[in-house]
Formats: sequence, C-alpha cells, structure tokens
Amino acid sequence: MDKIKITIAGPRGKMGQEAVKMVLETESFELVSVIDYKHGGKSLAAVLPFVHTDIPIYGNAQDAFENTRPAVLIDLTTPEAGFQHAKAALMAGVRPVVGTTGFTNDQLDELKELSKSKEIGCIIAPNFAIGAVLMMKFSSWAAKYFQDIEIIEMHHDQKLDAPSGTAVKTAEMINQVREEKRQGHPNEKETVPGARGADQKGMRIHSVRLPGLIAHQQVMFGDSGQILTIRHDSTNRASFMSGVKVSVETVMKLDQLVYGLENILE
Amino acid sequence: MDKIKITIAGPRGKMGQEAVKMVLETESFELVSVIDYKHGGKSLAAVLPFVHTDIPIYGNAQDAFENTRPAVLIDLTTPEAGFQHAKAALMAGVRPVVGTTGFTNDQLDELKELSKSKEIGCIIAPNFAIGAVLMMKFSSWAAKYFQDIEIIEMHHDQKLDAPSGTAVKTAEMINQVREEKRQGHPNEKETVPGARGADQKGMRIHSVRLPGLIAHQQVMFGDSGQILTIRHDSTNRASFMSGVKVSVETVMKLDQLVYGLENILE
Amino acid sequence: MDKIKITIAGPRGKMGQEAVKMVLETESFELVSVIDYKHGGKSLAAVLPFVHTDIPIYGNAQDAFENTRPAVLIDLTTPEAGFQHAKAALMAGVRPVVGTTGFTNDQLDELKELSKSKEIGCIIAPNFAIGAVLMMKFSSWAAKYFQDIEIIEMHHDQKLDAPSGTAVKTAEMINQVREEKRQGHPNEKETVPGARGADQKGMRIHSVRLPGLIAHQQVMFGDSGQILTIRHDSTNRASFMSGVKVSVETVMKLDQLVYGLENILE
Amino acid sequence: MDKIKITIAGPRGKMGQEAVKMVLETESFELVSVIDYKHGGKSLAAVLPFVHTDIPIYGNAQDAFENTRPAVLIDLTTPEAGFQHAKAALMAGVRPVVGTTGFTNDQLDELKELSKSKEIGCIIAPNFAIGAVLMMKFSSWAAKYFQDIEIIEMHHDQKLDAPSGTAVKTAEMINQVREEKRQGHPNEKETVPGARGADQKGMRIHSVRLPGLIAHQQVMFGDSGQILTIRHDSTNRASFMSGVKVSVETVMKLDQLVYGLENILE
Repeated sequence: MDKIKITIAGPRGKMGQEAVKMVLETESFELVSVIDYKHGGKSLAAVLPFVHTDIPIYGNAQDAFENTRPAVLIDLTTPEAGFQHAKAALMAGVRPVVGTTGFTNDQLDELKELSKSKEIGCIIAPNFAIGAVLMMKFSSWAAKYFQDIEIIEMHHDQKLDAPSGTAVKTAEMINQVREEKRQGHPNEKETVPGARGADQKGMRIHSVRLPGLIAHQQVMFGDSGQILTIRHDSTNRASFMSGVKVSVETVMKLDQLVYGLENILE
Repeated sequence: MDKIKITIAGPRGKMGQEAVKMVLETESFELVSVIDYKHGGKSLAAVLPFVHTDIPIYGNAQDAFENTRPAVLIDLTTPEAGFQHAKAALMAGVRPVVGTTGFTNDQLDELKELSKSKEIGCIIAPNFAIGAVLMMKFSSWAAKYFQDIEIIEMHHDQKLDAPSGTAVKTAEMINQVREEKRQGHPNEKETVPGARGADQKGMRIHSVRLPGLIAHQQVMFGDSGQILTIRHDSTNRASFMSGVKVSVETVMKLDQLVYGLENILE
Repeated sequence: MDKIKITIAGPRGKMGQEAVKMVLETESFELVSVIDYKHGGKSLAAVLPFVHTDIPIYGNAQDAFENTRPAVLIDLTTPEAGFQHAKAALMAGVRPVVGTTGFTNDQLDELKELSKSKEIGCIIAPNFAIGAVLMMKFSSWAAKYFQDIEIIEMHHDQKLDAPSGTAVKTAEMINQVREEKRQGHPNEKETVPGARGADQKGMRIHSVRLPGLIAHQQVMFGDSGQILTIRHDSTNRASFMSGVKVSVETVMKLDQLVYGLENILE
Repeated sequence: MDKIKITIAGPRGKMGQEAVKMVLETESFELVSVIDYKHGGKSLAAVLPFVHTDIPIYGNAQDAFENTRPAVLIDLTTPEAGFQHAKAALMAGVRPVVGTTGFTNDQLDELKELSKSKEIGCIIAPNFAIGAVLMMKFSSWAAKYFQDIEIIEMHHDQKLDAPSGTAVKTAEMINQVREEKRQGHPNEKETVPGARGADQKGMRIHSVRLPGLIAHQQVMFGDSGQILTIRHDSTNRASFMSGVKVSVETVMKLDQLVYGLENILE
C-alpha cells in the first residue's frame, strides 16, 4: 500500500512536535513537508533536534501543497491560521485534519461547503484523545439503561475551573438521552454544603483537586445490585496522537466534512 | 398506554422471585398469572409471602395462556421446561423472554423458525445483567482503537474456576476485533511464574480471589499517555432484573427471535 | 489452650445473630449462654433456627453469669440495657465487649472506674469494622506527610445524610494532625456550585449516592508526582465480626477499659 | 528558626536536579554548596540553567564541608562515591542523607559506628517515595488482621521484570506477620495457566503491563463483607523529594544511623 503523504502545520508547538514524531514513526505515513511561517526555506532538522531526515519547511500553505503534493494536512496551529490552511488545502485537493475548538459556525459552514463541492474529506476535532471521546460516547449510550449517574473528575490542583470542561460536556451528552431525575434520597440532607457535588439536572459532578493528579474522569452508573464505571486517565499529550492517526486514516475515505472525533469512531 | 400483560414461569426460584417483584413494581407491567407445576390452582400469595394481590398459579403453560391471555412469558425455569414453555407460548401468540444458557442449536433453530412464521418476537438471553453486557460490548468496541488490553476479574474466594466465564467471553469478543499481539516488553521476564496472568493471544487476564469480594471485572485499555477502563461491579441478582425489564419492552416490538441481550441494547 | 467462655446479650438482633454464628464457628470460643429478656428459660435453638446445640437463654444478666461462668460478655443490645449488662458483668468478674455509640460520658466514667478497681478489661466500641477503623487510623497517620487530602464516600441512594458519619469522623481525625490549608488553586472557581464538595478546614469531602452502591470510602493523599489512596468497601454486616473477635481476644489481656477499636489495633 | 544549611552531591543527575529545586524552594532550607567532581570551581548557575543564585561547586566533599559548613549532606551519586562522601561528612560533623540501595553490610556497619561515635544522625534510604513506603508499612500492619491479601502492581509496558521489586518487597514485609495460607478455594482450578498470578506463600501478585501506565501498586485485604485497599500511584520522580525533605528534617534530630525511610515515619 502506498504511504499517505502528509504536511504538518505548526510543527514547533507542543502538539505539533508530538505530531511530527508520530508521523515519522508510523510506517504507513510519510512526512513530505511542514508549514511554519517563521522558518520557511529551512530544513525541519534545523528547528527540531530530534528530526534526522530532510523535511522542507514552507512559509505558506500553498507552496507546501504545490511542491510536495501531500494527501493530508495536519493542522495544529491557531483557529485563524488553521482556517486559512484548511481552506487552501481543500482548494488544492488536500484533505485537512484540524485540531481546534475555535472555528465559528460560519467558518465551519464554509469548510463544509468546500469539502462537499470538492468531494474530499475534512475532519475538524476539538479533542483528539480517543479514550476521552470513547468515554463520553459509551457514557451517553449507557445512560439509556441507567438513570442514576455520577461523574467524578480528578485533576492537579493548578486547575482553575470546577467542574472540568470534559465533565460538563459528558453531562450534556448524557442529558440528551437521560430523563431529568433528582438523584439520591428525596429527603437527603447536606449537613455540610457542597457534599453532594454540582447538580446537572439531578445528576451530580464531583471535582477532586490534588497535587499528583494529572487528568482523570470516572463516570459511574448505578442500578439495583450493579455499578458500571467508565474511566479515562490521561497522563500526557502523547495521548492525542492516536486520535490524529485515526483521523488521517479516516479522512482518506471521506467525501465530506466531519466534526468531532466521536463521529468517526464506529 | 395499556399495561403489558405478563406470565412468569418459575416464580419460586431465586431469579423468579426477583422477577415477580420487578413485574409487580413496574407501572407499565401487569402480572396476570404464573406457571408452577407444583402449585397449580393455588393463588401466588399462598406461595410467596411478599405477594399481596390475587395472582392465579397454573400447573401448565397452555392453561395459563388460554385463561389469562398474557402478551409476554418470562421464563426462568430449566432449559427443558423453558424450551417447552417457549414453544407453547409462540404457538399461543405469546412472546417469550427466556433466561438460559442451556438451549441446543437445534432448539434455538426450532424457536427461530416458529418465531419467524408467527411474526412475533422472542428473546433468549444467557445473561440479563445489562451492566455486564454493556461492559463486554464497549470493550469490543474500544479494542478497535487500543491494541493493549488487560482484564482484571475479581471474585469471592469460593469461586472454583479462574479466569471467570465472563472474563473469557470478554477476551473472545475483544479478540474478534483485535489483531493478535504479544503484550508487554519483548524481553519481559516472570521472576515468579504466573505474575503476568493468563495469556489469551497476548492479552492478559488476572483473577483475584478474596473473601469480601462479590463479582467484579475491570477491562483496561492502554495507549501512550492514556488508560481507558471499563468496570462492572455486581453485588446481587437484583441486577438481572433491569435486563429482564428491557427485554419485555423490546420483545413487544420484535417480529423474530433475538439471541443475547447485547443484540437488543443499541 | 482453654476456650474462651462467652455470653451474648441481644442474640436475636441482626448483629446479635452474626455474633452467635461467629462464636459458634470460632474454634477457640465457646458460647455458654445468651441473655434475652423475652425468652428466658428456653434453649437458643428454639429461637434461632440455625443453632443446633443446646445453649441456655437467661432473662437477666446476673443469672447468666452465675450459672454459666463466662469469661466475656458480648453485648449487642441498646445503650440502656448495654450499660446495665456491662456493669453487672464487671461486678461478676466478666469482661464486657460492648458495641454502642450511645453511652454518656458519665456512664463511660463509671465503667472505667469499675474496670480499674476490678482490674479486668472492658472494651466499648462504636464501630467493629476493622477495615474502616484501620482506614481512619492509616489516614490520620498519612496526613502527617501529605497536606492535600480529599475524601470520596460512596453509598446507596437511600442514605439520608451527606457526608457520611464515617467521612466526617475521618476528617476530624485527619484535622488533628493536619495544619489547616485551603486546598486547590487559590483562584479556583466553581462554575457550578458544589463541584468542589464539602469544605472541612480546606480539605474536601465528596458524597456519591447511587443504587447498587453499598458503603464505600476512599481517602486520597496527593503530593508532587504521587497519590496515596486508602479505601474501604463494606458489603455486609459480617464485616463487623472480625472486630468483635479481636476484641474478645484482646479484652482477656487488658486490666482496664479501652474505648474505640482503634486503640487496640497495634 | 535558622535555616538548615545543605550541600548536595550529584546535582546534575535526574534525582540531583530535583533535589536542587526542592532545596531552593523550601523556605527552611539553604543550599550552601554542591559537590560535582567534573565542575569544581564553577558556579551552579553555569551548569543548571534553572538556578539563578550563586551556589559554589566543589570538586570534592572535604572542600565543600570546610568552606561552606553545611549541617546536612544530601547524596544522590553512586554507591562508591556516596560511601566516601558519607564517611567524610560524618568525620566533618555533617549529617548525611543518602539515597542508595547499593551499600554493603560492611559499609553500613562502618557508617553506623562512625555515626554513633560522633553522635550525629545519618539516614540511608533505598526508597524516598513516602507514599510507597507508607503503603508497605500500612500493608504489613493490616496483614495482622486480614489473612487474605492480593497485590496488583501496574506498570508501563517497557518494564522488564514481573513482579516489580516493590511488590516483592511488600509481599516479604507482609509475610513477616502473615501466617502462610493458600488463598482461594481449596479446589480452585486455573483453566488458563497464570490466571491466579504469582504465588508468594499462598498470597498472590498480579503484574499488569500497559502503555499509558506509569508505576502503580494496589494491595487488597479481604475478609467477610469487607475489602481494605491501599494504593500508591507514582507519576514522576518529584515524588521522591518529599521523602528527602522529611529525611533532612529528621536527620537533624537523630544521634545515630537509621536505614530505611519506614523507620523514620512514625
């Protein structure tokens, strides 16, 4: 099978460096170029010490696409640059895989149109951690059969917001299939306020913060005589790369835009 | 909405008693009769002290079906009786929900034919614990994205076999989608034999036995920087009743036989 | 070695029945009589179907002590009866092991005096679950080395109060050795109230309530790069009996009153 | 209170760098010098980019002790250098805190003598992770009350040996207080070899290996109706520093040598 030719935009960022490593280490992928407006014209090896092959850096997307003919663009830059790169990619027949939460609805609509008219795939993903996406997907499935659900999310004590964004999103996904229900005993009493956690239509979220924790979430489903638990532990950003990899493989088979990793994991 | 009229076969067994309770407590269900060859002619209240309404007991299935016209038969007897009951039910236009692992392929085929020709549903389930069935279903799904998997099953120390049947079945379901892979370091060495558990095509199962445990299983999926865990804790047989309930609701909408709870949880 | 002769007061209660079973099954113990004001004069086998030997029931404590000369009294009645039984026991040279949270300070002082003057042991224990007591003891020890601590207690959804009594007691024991500290990021913000749980001098308690849970508590200690967790799962009241057993063995070696199982586990 | 003046030997190693950070960040400690035979005469800031104050580097221990008069030496070098440094420290009235598993009994005896005759403290610790040491200490304590114990240790899949050294050490400590007992049902049968794990006098150890794991161990104690679990999760070597810190504080109060962190955590 031919290798999938790939261009990476944003190779110097934390996610970008992980993506460079992942593509170089994947047998079926070939890194043909990177896009980095600051270092156009240099070789990637001059910028990233762990790169030992000769990969050209281009200062803009069009040049990279024209000169190195990638099949896929992995974009890990900013929403602004990412949108321009994705548009240019689709125009040039290159399939974009973009990691961002920052696109507006108008931007998404524009890319959707472009993807459709060009009949090539495009994946926009706010979260590339397959494990976290599966946790949310399984949770909203299990919620069809379990009415009583509590979420415990646990993070390092430098985190500012409680509950975490992932916990709130999980609760929203669950509440799309769960009928609103006040959980616990009807006469239950908090002798110390806050003990029963944050209320989300009767479901509860508990936020644990401790040094030594990284990023963990556990969703518990209870019914007479049984508990089902779905848990995700994330310890470093390498965890995002399996999601990027699956996205690259999947975008090759798509002929339209898909938003969210959960919609390609089947 | 009309209540679903139900007959229960085997009301005195442990599972049968739980089923009687569940049907009596479910708003949308109505227990119209029970089948119990030993107590035909009596009232169920005479046999089960917790029953306070007048439910007739029939000594055989046909009489129960003719006299009380149930829509659904819940059968929690033996494979032999269960097969006869299910056949009689389908002949009488009653939809069977049977909990058994004991039917032969021939028996299943015969019921399948009958169900199809009568165009009414029939559910045969070896395991009614929804949580356990979802655990297996989610595990075989997650296995598409995680190659490295270990199963830890934990039971009370009166259990004779290790690994448990559920663990072995989970491993089989996973191995249908997982490429065979020897896990752990290629040069890993067991300094005490057995440390790395039971080998199932390179995946490992660990069986923990302790007084104080009941029945628990945890399936762990590992990838760079992340762990996904799916766990089921079963503490008593009331846990089976939500599966029986879903089966009763689902069998009303089916026009053929379905084998296994996993095929109706969608 | 001679068997320890034992009288049990309150043999028909839930705890009492477990105690009868435990004493009958323990090689080194001998049940010589029980105290039950309702059934004085009968044989225990007439009252408890699982008893197959001839154990006399006495309507009051003095008669039981005089006629059957036990070394130890296990009292699982009410605070009122328990106090009278314990006093009578000490007067008769019998060592009391009493499970209660209900004694007043005056009552405790009186028993303490009596125990001391008679120079025989007496154990009063609010909680006989060794695992729970060890969890609290280890927690207050670990708190010397870990400043950041969160407690997650999980119970069935019929429980009325949150947090649980055990969680509050654990927090109190920890706060005797922990310097007050507001945990989490100084600028942390609850976007949904209650997310960060119940505040106990800056330490947090989270109360999870779900059907399918029984009684569980997990104390987590965090520090840079590590988490220490101490957890207790209680699934039925048989768990109290190992504490009663250890108390009987220990009370034989004491010459004074000890309050609390934590003070005899060394 | 005066700050404790400290010299660190081996400041460039992974542990050494963590120790430099820890000492610089601890209010009550003062880093007066470091020992590094390769960079004697330079300033530490020239060697470690994160150091912004002027700390002198000495090529040998005697010079460091004479010129900067530390109260404590933290040694994180090799067993050979560590032994020489510790000896020199004790001779110069400096209290050594040495992290090593490599001293011979003769070397330990020599240091013990020297420490005793000089009447100053000395701590030699094979493991500075307080959480792990407490886990082992609590485990051997709980083993007095629970006969049935299983250890599950979980590590990344690059680990070569199974079970881990910590698991084996924990089992040894437990077996010093636990009577030998074959756990599980007497007729239990492994249908797949290895399911029941590694046998240690009837106690079982299970070794889980997955990418995404770091270093985790869970010790489970079972008894009728209850489970006690003690777990340690180690995610990076910063976890060792709280142990070094406690050792520095403790060594100031000692007048003899103590081996093992477990003997100073009380």
